[in-house]
Amino acid sequence: MDRRSFLTKGAVGATAGAAASALAAPAYAQGNRTLTLVTTWGRGLAGVHDSAQYCADAITAMTDGQLTVDLKAGGELVGPFEVFDAVSAGQADMYHGVDYYFLSQHPALSFFSQIPFGMTFQEYANWHDHDGGRELSDELYSIFGLKSFPAGNTGPQSGGWFSKEMNSPADFQGLRFRMPGQGGEVLGKLGASVQNLPGAEVYQALASGSIDGTEWIGPWADEKAGFQEITKFYYTAGFHEPGPNLNLTMNLDVYESLTPAQQAIVENASRAANLWTMSLFMANNSAALQRLQSGGVQLLEFSDEIWDAFGQAAQEVVEAPMGDELYDKIYDSYMASLDSSANWISRSQGEFTAQRDRVKG
Amino acid sequence: MDRRSFLTKGAVGATAGAAASALAAPAYAQGNRTLTLVTTWGRGLAGVHDSAQYCADAITAMTDGQLTVDLKAGGELVGPFEVFDAVSAGQADMYHGVDYYFLSQHPALSFFSQIPFGMTFQEYANWHDHDGGRELSDELYSIFGLKSFPAGNTGPQSGGWFSKEMNSPADFQGLRFRMPGQGGEVLGKLGASVQNLPGAEVYQALASGSIDGTEWIGPWADEKAGFQEITKFYYTAGFHEPGPNLNLTMNLDVYESLTPAQQAIVENASRAANLWTMSLFMANNSAALQRLQSGGVQLLEFSDEIWDAFGQAAQEVVEAPMGDELYDKIYDSYMASLDSSANWISRSQGEFTAQRDRVKG
Repeated sequence: MDRRSFLTKGAVGATAGAAASALAAPAYAQGNRTLTLVTTWGRGLAGVHDSAQYCADAITAMTDGQLTVDLKAGGELVGPFEVFDAVSAGQADMYHGVDYYFLSQHPALSFFSQIPFGMTFQEYANWHDHDGGRELSDELYSIFGLKSFPAGNTGPQSGGWFSKEMNSPADFQGLRFRMPGQGGEVLGKLGASVQNLPGAEVYQALASGSIDGTEWIGPWADEKAGFQEITKFYYTAGFHEPGPNLNLTMNLDVYESLTPAQQAIVENASRAANLWTMSLFMANNSAALQRLQSGGVQLLEFSDEIWDAFGQAAQEVVEAPMGDELYDKIYDSYMASLDSSANWISRSQGEFTAQRDRVKG
Repeated sequence: MDRRSFLTKGAVGATAGAAASALAAPAYAQGNRTLTLVTTWGRGLAGVHDSAQYCADAITAMTDGQLTVDLKAGGELVGPFEVFDAVSAGQADMYHGVDYYFLSQHPALSFFSQIPFGMTFQEYANWHDHDGGRELSDELYSIFGLKSFPAGNTGPQSGGWFSKEMNSPADFQGLRFRMPGQGGEVLGKLGASVQNLPGAEVYQALASGSIDGTEWIGPWADEKAGFQEITKFYYTAGFHEPGPNLNLTMNLDVYESLTPAQQAIVENASRAANLWTMSLFMANNSAALQRLQSGGVQLLEFSDEIWDAFGQAAQEVVEAPMGDELYDKIYDSYMASLDSSANWISRSQGEFTAQRDRVKG
């Protein structure tokens, strides 16, 4: 995924500054209220906009209209990358998005969205709800006057499409590949020439040969983008986003102005949306992968040697000193939780599913 | 898990018949209502009672007391294995439990709880919410005047504790092993002498040598049971319950008497409880596994040959003809969804986690 790719329809909206002057601060009436939900997604963008819509609908339905959530897609009220500032400043009540878009606000937001070689969906739910993540989230987001809840997950993102088979780390030397964010930094360390193209330009760049490959999201979105029309070499597993977490994030004053029942509704709507969204992606990715296979796409896996190179480079990217005490505290908590949960889940669910696949052929 | 093991405290309550005469049908007042939630769990039983409590607390909190859920553990109002009948008959409003306890009511309830070599937590959420499971659930449960929602999951259950290493399928010949339900049927096909001891008797049976091994739940519960004091051979992955689904199941008339807002609250409370419970087990299992390892327990994996034997026997158990059209319809939907989602998840998340484990050592 990347920042611009998610804005598929509608122009990027007003800047945060313009939005500030155009919008009044929300009034807190005693009776029914309308809450504005802005997002980092283009309207209708498969899966992620659906996730925001689930949150909006669930809160509206459960409060019987006491809270009516007005969903504004990216660009409709503020630009998709202005939502963090807009909600922090109280110009909108809440946003739905993925917070690695806002690392310039605080680098530790990566842990509450995704780091390379990081947590899967289940591991993140474990850390957040039962292993220290929630308390650290509260500490971090409150700096910005925000309160955040996990509210969606795309599941694992694919390794990507390549014009040829990748046989060793040396094949990444000089490879012109599109991958944004920390994942792109990792490939850069392997010698790739990393491109950060907006979504609308990727298909053409791949078709014309001006890039040698691209990652996108997963089979559902990748098939819609049409990359299978250009190349048949598809690496389904990737190191860069094994389970990106999407948050529903409220202005803290707005959150604290809610009744306890309304606060419980926001929290449970988010937690329900989280599971519902993960499985929405899973269902659609599963069906799309079957179609891609039937259409002759080759499903490939990177070699151990390549994974080792990804791992070494990812460690260098993630462990680069930030000089921030809170970052270090969150890093320690995240890594300790990941080590612990990964050990259990690999020895139980991981071993079971590997054996089930093998036994059933 | 087994039926009796979950009743750790309090005697088994009145029979369904006695309960029917003792309890008035619930009155549907216009204003605030109290809903009775019965369970298949003993009060305080780690994880599963917590899951029922989450549902009760969330519904009460989100409705601001319009609906107050009164949680009765197994045996407090009706016995843990009478909850299905009691809610079906309207003697209680809803129950929280695992529905393989009620296969005598309908064999297809296995799909909405667990079958050997069946779905994991994520695969079940996928099938239920997005791949046909919900509609089939509605069809099945409505036969009994019920409406059911996924509301918890223990995550994968462990293969179990053995007095020696298991090296081939022949080692199961004559093995005296405790495993209830369809899993036990599978081991029986391998020649094991399957015991179905109540939970309270398992430790003593293993300690005295009257059984050669036992499965229980997972590291969290297994450690509490103290099996590591008797043997150090622990197979962490098992074929029998890779992700048992727990349901919150309401009397259908009661459900239909709720307002749309209250119905939305019940559904979202259940979905939130589902994720929260899975991760509660994951956090506690992860921590317990670390302690068991530190304490000298050997963590083992069954060989491919043994998994093949499990797979062959499980197929015979699950595919035994039931002579029931609805069973066959649900079987087909479940298996098609499992094949599709397992293919995607193994090629993405499965490959990622295996490589992450390998790279990080």
